[in-house]
Amino acid sequence: MSIDYKAQGYRDLLISLDRGVAVVTINRPKQRNTFGGTLPQELEAVFELLDLDDRVRVVILTADTKAPAFCSGADLSGGWGGLFHVHRDSGGKVSMAIFRCRKITIAAVNGHAVGVGVTGLQLPFDFRFVWAGAKLALPFVRRGIAVEAGASFLLPRLVGHAKATALLLTGGTFSPDSPYLQGLYHDILPTREAVLPTALAFARELAENTSMTSVASTKALLSRGVDSIEGQHLIDSRVLADLARSDDAAEGARAFIERRPVQFKDTLKNLSEHIPWWTSPDTSFRRTKL
Amino acid sequence: MSIDYKAQGYRDLLISLDRGVAVVTINRPKQRNTFGGTLPQELEAVFELLDLDDRVRVVILTADTKAPAFCSGADLSGGWGGLFHVHRDSGGKVSMAIFRCRKITIAAVNGHAVGVGVTGLQLPFDFRFVWAGAKLALPFVRRGIAVEAGASFLLPRLVGHAKATALLLTGGTFSPDSPYLQGLYHDILPTREAVLPTALAFARELAENTSMTSVASTKALLSRGVDSIEGQHLIDSRVLADLARSDDAAEGARAFIERRPVQFKDTLKNLSEHIPWWTSPDTSFRRTKL
Amino acid sequence: MSIDYKAQGYRDLLISLDRGVAVVTINRPKQRNTFGGTLPQELEAVFELLDLDDRVRVVILTADTKAPAFCSGADLSGGWGGLFHVHRDSGGKVSMAIFRCRKITIAAVNGHAVGVGVTGLQLPFDFRFVWAGAKLALPFVRRGIAVEAGASFLLPRLVGHAKATALLLTGGTFSPDSPYLQGLYHDILPTREAVLPTALAFARELAENTSMTSVASTKALLSRGVDSIEGQHLIDSRVLADLARSDDAAEGARAFIERRPVQFKDTLKNLSEHIPWWTSPDTSFRRTKL
Repeated sequence: MSIDYKAQGYRDLLISLDRGVAVVTINRPKQRNTFGGTLPQELEAVFELLDLDDRVRVVILTADTKAPAFCSGADLSGGWGGLFHVHRDSGGKVSMAIFRCRKITIAAVNGHAVGVGVTGLQLPFDFRFVWAGAKLALPFVRRGIAVEAGASFLLPRLVGHAKATALLLTGGTFSPDSPYLQGLYHDILPTREAVLPTALAFARELAENTSMTSVASTKALLSRGVDSIEGQHLIDSRVLADLARSDDAAEGARAFIERRPVQFKDTLKNLSEHIPWWTSPDTSFRRTKL
Repeated sequence: MSIDYKAQGYRDLLISLDRGVAVVTINRPKQRNTFGGTLPQELEAVFELLDLDDRVRVVILTADTKAPAFCSGADLSGGWGGLFHVHRDSGGKVSMAIFRCRKITIAAVNGHAVGVGVTGLQLPFDFRFVWAGAKLALPFVRRGIAVEAGASFLLPRLVGHAKATALLLTGGTFSPDSPYLQGLYHDILPTREAVLPTALAFARELAENTSMTSVASTKALLSRGVDSIEGQHLIDSRVLADLARSDDAAEGARAFIERRPVQFKDTLKNLSEHIPWWTSPDTSFRRTKL
Repeated sequence: MSIDYKAQGYRDLLISLDRGVAVVTINRPKQRNTFGGTLPQELEAVFELLDLDDRVRVVILTADTKAPAFCSGADLSGGWGGLFHVHRDSGGKVSMAIFRCRKITIAAVNGHAVGVGVTGLQLPFDFRFVWAGAKLALPFVRRGIAVEAGASFLLPRLVGHAKATALLLTGGTFSPDSPYLQGLYHDILPTREAVLPTALAFARELAENTSMTSVASTKALLSRGVDSIEGQHLIDSRVLADLARSDDAAEGARAFIERRPVQFKDTLKNLSEHIPWWTSPDTSFRRTKL
């Protein structure tokens, strides 16, 4: 399946796709790249499409550098009431779409980030590249609200509760080299301009040399693990037994033995039939009492 | 609700309260600040009261520095049998009272700590400040017992299983700069005397600038998270929708726009009605068969 | 219970036992210590026996250094199909046997490691010692398969999801000092030859000074924890109440008071009757439809 991104008519996003790597650019410089306008809906939609597009192996989210911020968070001019008046947090919807995307996902944080610009637009990704000068603000407890976008699920998983608590309960602004962020960023770059090219080079190498089904299976095993090694063993055994019979597995072994680059061709239609093994709550909005 | 701490008649604790910050001081220097006497019961009781006291935004636990130890652990003169002869570990009861406290909690570890002085009196806190010279001993496996006070739950969550296992299975004594403790302490201070003032300054800033309902909501989301991003999204969406309509949220947004300090006034009676969303086992002691 | 390891007739393993420390040596230098031949079955079997052997307090896994690799992973000459054609991943069976072993377990990684040589033969251990020059490769996504041996359960628990994702989705080869491995290795040694002696000295000290029941109880509390502090408190209280009445607890307290070395004698027959408190899926292979 291939998607025509132009036909989607996105207003706040630019999409490009080249050799397996899609780049999604937040394009609201006049609004300081705030998480407003149609950005939330477009992000949710595009990550669902990128997940389905067989040409896409890696997705990078970055921002137009005409604004100083990668994402300056919610627009507070109307207060919080206008932002969280519905049952379903829009930051969380974006988080879930990114978290569920079965391709490799990378946040290329080439500017400052505030609130949802740190939570929803960074934590659900597989990798985060960041500018060393970025100010990363998590001011929720200083603004009278609480952390959103599933970050209370994602952040402790990524770096443990000690760091997650320090980051969220201080409501502070952090530099990428803060000890409380240790381990969160895959790479820290000296200039804003270096972030996207570095992420792109990393993405291209992965797009060329990794199997789409291997990636999706590994992501599923990591993100939807069960709570005992025995349970996980039952799952990973079945997924591996399916994968081992795939064309990509045969190609992976052959290329290794012949000491040549791989040429993986399987797409997600070749994914193990044992995926998904999990169920999760239905988060669709219904106009009935919760 | 305001509490009269003097009226509680604590023998092993001193309590002070000033501008939103409560300081609880372990006051058993003649007993080397052992975890004995009435200390366990008093700690459990006072953290339950501090949770309810509307004047309290931050709680610090520290120790009288006339003893060399912050807490020298259990008094072993009667063997272990006298300490764990009942169904419910007293260290665990203290741990739970601290863990459940909905205010920001800080351990100001201004001396050595042994056993429960590390587990029950440090791990359930949101933040830990420590003297660089503190000896931190976890000798359980070298004394014929096992780790207590819920630490087998808390420690892996805080720093991961690799470090938790290293700390507990060696039964070693560690310095705060040990790699096995990396990430556990928010700050490491050069002198015993610097620990409490540093923690106090940190606490005062948080007491002045954070919302009590935001803090309690964030702590609940972090400590009682569910096991899928979808489930967490359903919960954080509801909590945020409630908070966004609160006076503190309105004040937070206004203060931000007006570039002035916040004046939060909400107390826990204004907490989202969707908290608590969890149930947990009843740990009250009953004289019936377990 | 004592085991006669010679009588087991292992072909790919050497077993030695001295003063409470068992050393299991992978002995397939001609096959570059691949995870093949009878090695998987023998590893699974021996860890089940070491668990039961009352003489064994600590187990070390290491490799014959005539091969350059600690374990060079699966033998890919027959492709992946021959390796994962059954319901139950053999790497996962080994992982589970090690993870379930109630003694202290140490991987002494004195050479390079690939695939299952990192996952199954390192992650289920309590401690990992490694040669600084070891190349540690996790190439699953570059070979068309997914991570196995329960590593998708073990690795995020050990070091968090940020590092686990970086290690597994890049499919990279890492040095022990990689930031993505930070915290995973207990010690990093400058030469291959230093790894086993360092691990042995560490093991002997633990074998002499730790209680077998304390170790097994602590491992159970860490590896089979429940998802609330209240639930964990109910469990650790019961385990501690049993342990506190044990001979090892009495000895531990006496030795401490008399300031002399401990002489622990309890074996796993003295373990708390409240262990195990968990149930886990049956992973035995049955010739019925899954």
